[in-house]
Amino acid sequence: MANIKIVVEYDGTDYHGWQLQKNTSDTIQGKLETAVSRLNKSKVRVHGAGRTDAGVHARGQVANFQLEVPIPVEKIPLALNAELPPDIICKAAEKMPPSFHARYDTRGKKYCYRLSNNRFNSVFNRRFVYNIYQKLDITAMKEGLKQLEGCHDFSSFEASGSEIKKPVRTIKEINFFKKEIASCYAKSEYWLTVSGDGFLYNMVRIIAGTLIEVGLGKRKPEYKKIMKSCDRRQAGFTAPARGLTLVEVYY
Amino acid sequence: MANIKIVVEYDGTDYHGWQLQKNTSDTIQGKLETAVSRLNKSKVRVHGAGRTDAGVHARGQVANFQLEVPIPVEKIPLALNAELPPDIICKAAEKMPPSFHARYDTRGKKYCYRLSNNRFNSVFNRRFVYNIYQKLDITAMKEGLKQLEGCHDFSSFEASGSEIKKPVRTIKEINFFKKEIASCYAKSEYWLTVSGDGFLYNMVRIIAGTLIEVGLGKRKPEYKKIMKSCDRRQAGFTAPARGLTLVEVYY
Repeated sequence: MANIKIVVEYDGTDYHGWQLQKNTSDTIQGKLETAVSRLNKSKVRVHGAGRTDAGVHARGQVANFQLEVPIPVEKIPLALNAELPPDIICKAAEKMPPSFHARYDTRGKKYCYRLSNNRFNSVFNRRFVYNIYQKLDITAMKEGLKQLEGCHDFSSFEASGSEIKKPVRTIKEINFFKKEIASCYAKSEYWLTVSGDGFLYNMVRIIAGTLIEVGLGKRKPEYKKIMKSCDRRQAGFTAPARGLTLVEVYY
Repeated sequence: MANIKIVVEYDGTDYHGWQLQKNTSDTIQGKLETAVSRLNKSKVRVHGAGRTDAGVHARGQVANFQLEVPIPVEKIPLALNAELPPDIICKAAEKMPPSFHARYDTRGKKYCYRLSNNRFNSVFNRRFVYNIYQKLDITAMKEGLKQLEGCHDFSSFEASGSEIKKPVRTIKEINFFKKEIASCYAKSEYWLTVSGDGFLYNMVRIIAGTLIEVGLGKRKPEYKKIMKSCDRRQAGFTAPARGLTLVEVYY
């Protein structure tokens, strides 16, 4: 028996999120458990570092599972990829001490929200980038964001109806910047990157939505005021899932 | 009646190529004709600059059509995009003299073949980039390519069974280079860009395939020799459609 940690990349567009669901097999966890179980020749539970929502992507999601069959750890990625659909890949595998748990041992995560501001949404980015057609005030969008850094009650940035009882989280770093994209297709994008010890339900997407409303001139960059209110209605809309990518999980 | 020129971008992954087919409506031309005809309230024929194969993409395909209804030309892209699926967009529209024809007036085209050389094919690029798992000799791939520039009989680089009688074309410029991709997902790619006055069936994909075989050490960069043979079997394999993008059409 070996405790295996894997790093997973996925295009979340066609999935109902990370977590197993009763009514569908189209979840990332579901696809991974099927692939790992086939490898193991018996049912295996796969634990993820975080539950990404429907449509959210990952570049560096982490998961772990108990493998009974003796497969050299360096062969696990290729073996899993042979079983996985092309929009989910295992990029790395590592043998861990028995106590390691992808979710409980997480020290933090980093997310990236990708925005573009073009007249048309490029077909090449449409799955991963949220395009705003209206003019954005990028200078305003860079203002005040650092108010969100540090340890705060983020209730205002949590989806209503959420069950989390302690809505206090620490944002280690938040940045919004223009990213030159040297691709065939688009000249630049805007990235909102956020790293922190943990995130409430929809937190990054609500921060992104609030930031977009600042860019559209619908509100001022008064994040402190929003946090103080502890009122979801004081923050902006929930930006679409497709712009969000889980970039890294820290241990 | 106005003769309208449009610039079109598409993700060709889910289509049977540009050209109308009897058995399917899933062609780019088919989708465009449906959209334009709806705008025009009667059937309209859309002429494309070139017929891209199934799975090939375009960043700057050009087409033209005769529009009977009086729509301001600057409103045409948005009006068409409202009717088009998300993987096809009209980026620009322009009123042209009655004599303009997207296909007959073409002076040249530019294509880009995107390659990557990673252990795993990124899920984010999988539709647009062809990944080679084996080690590529990039230095060898840069050698001799310029032999292909100029006016030559490209029979060796033409899909067999093609009906084109005069296989002489001019390649104006061909380059192979590393492209730093400042994206969330991949560090670099390799691009083969080719511009010329016209291309034989599968010509760019066969050049790409030959180049890949050079990179894999399966053959030497002796393009002149291949051209001289006028024998399809002397060139390399036909690289997959997904790596190929029609970048620009020249008039």
